[in-house]
Amino acid sequence: MNRMKRSIEDTPIVFIGAGNLATHLAKALYRKGFRIEQVYSRTELSASKLAEVVEATYTTQLAEVVKGAQLYIVALNDAAFLKLLPEMVLGRQHALWVHTAGSLPMYVWEGVTERYGVFYPLQTFSMRREVKFAEIPIFIEAHQAEDEIFLKKIAARLSKRVYETTSEERKWLHLAAVFSCNFTNHLYALTEKWLNKKELSFDVLLPLIDETVCKVHELSPRDAQTGPALRNDENIINTHLRMLADEPEMQELYRLLSDSIHRFSQS
Amino acid sequence: MNRMKRSIEDTPIVFIGAGNLATHLAKALYRKGFRIEQVYSRTELSASKLAEVVEATYTTQLAEVVKGAQLYIVALNDAAFLKLLPEMVLGRQHALWVHTAGSLPMYVWEGVTERYGVFYPLQTFSMRREVKFAEIPIFIEAHQAEDEIFLKKIAARLSKRVYETTSEERKWLHLAAVFSCNFTNHLYALTEKWLNKKELSFDVLLPLIDETVCKVHELSPRDAQTGPALRNDENIINTHLRMLADEPEMQELYRLLSDSIHRFSQS
Repeated sequence: MNRMKRSIEDTPIVFIGAGNLATHLAKALYRKGFRIEQVYSRTELSASKLAEVVEATYTTQLAEVVKGAQLYIVALNDAAFLKLLPEMVLGRQHALWVHTAGSLPMYVWEGVTERYGVFYPLQTFSMRREVKFAEIPIFIEAHQAEDEIFLKKIAARLSKRVYETTSEERKWLHLAAVFSCNFTNHLYALTEKWLNKKELSFDVLLPLIDETVCKVHELSPRDAQTGPALRNDENIINTHLRMLADEPEMQELYRLLSDSIHRFSQS
Repeated sequence: MNRMKRSIEDTPIVFIGAGNLATHLAKALYRKGFRIEQVYSRTELSASKLAEVVEATYTTQLAEVVKGAQLYIVALNDAAFLKLLPEMVLGRQHALWVHTAGSLPMYVWEGVTERYGVFYPLQTFSMRREVKFAEIPIFIEAHQAEDEIFLKKIAARLSKRVYETTSEERKWLHLAAVFSCNFTNHLYALTEKWLNKKELSFDVLLPLIDETVCKVHELSPRDAQTGPALRNDENIINTHLRMLADEPEMQELYRLLSDSIHRFSQS
């Protein structure tokens, strides 16, 4: 064959947004050989920083977003997304538009354009930490079948775990992620603050924290549970509640979670 | 030198209790060459099972616990411990007695015997999972200085992380462990149950859960936080609360934890 086959990596991609998710996703695509054409962000520093890393141009003006790209990946917070929605698509309806939010249904694109979908990597992204995209589940949804195939191909370049999901399922997964990531992390944060007050280091808990998570790779969390609440050890529970007398917020959480653990084990 | 130096591993040890902690600790000591002489448990099955693995004898009668051991390690739940306390020590006051509880102060031994202490491995133990003792922090306390040295030597055979701690500090660490292990695990358990109702698998969350924990090895949990509560994204928070209308317990936890995350980020 003489004709060069155009590979999926040649698709010109524009990123709308340059926050944590946009940055990690754009970098992961860039490293896999994808061509990031442009980065838009209201914040010049964010836009220019990401653009530099992925060898793209950048703009802080929606009107200056290029019109010729094939794929626009929107990674804004929900409020900003909904506000900019019609304007950003205007004049670029030929292309495929996806958002990256667990919380937004696909139908937010309805009436705005014809080729749209969702590209949702389920992970917690922080600027200061690299992540291995290969392990991250990516949830795909698209209005048109051929766009879904195309998005799944792109996702498969990044990760071993690519799933088709409905908007409904994605919403549930996002809520589940809040419980198992944001809320558990907050329990660590409260614990750290409290230990520091006692001049003890949070670090001694890390082997325990690691093991707690290793366990749920092998056992159901229901079967992995241990501790005073599970045993309904009222002595210890009451001592702990007294120890938290100066921390009403932790005390309330302790009460609720201990009750819940005990009830759960009986159900 | 012709005289054989007696090594620390030759100390005859008796285990009072054969539950999760006793089993893991006894096995770890056994593998390091320590001599477990006897296992006591009210439950014959538990006693015989552990005794077989560590090549010890066993008994279900406190009166039959051997009198000649050097170290008695008590790993019972707090209530059972306090109930059996004077009786088990009677006639065995020459030996060193330790309990393994985060929650019990050392002074529970006071008046019962003269040589006593605490040997507290901070970890979550389940029968169905092996743990690497080398990483487990072990917190040591003893009434007499030479016993403390002795316990620290034993602990150092098992783990790289051996600390002297007061009863007060141990109590705080135990409470911290409840937050960062039992409570986080319960959030996983609630999430799993809820996802299963929606016919979704908990397993897709594992990369996120792993990353959440990897992050706190590098960042303070305060800096690692992400998600709608941190951004105070009321749209998403209210949607999530509505989605949990049939799960009042999760709804209440969602509300409390989200409020707490937001307040914490402002503090």
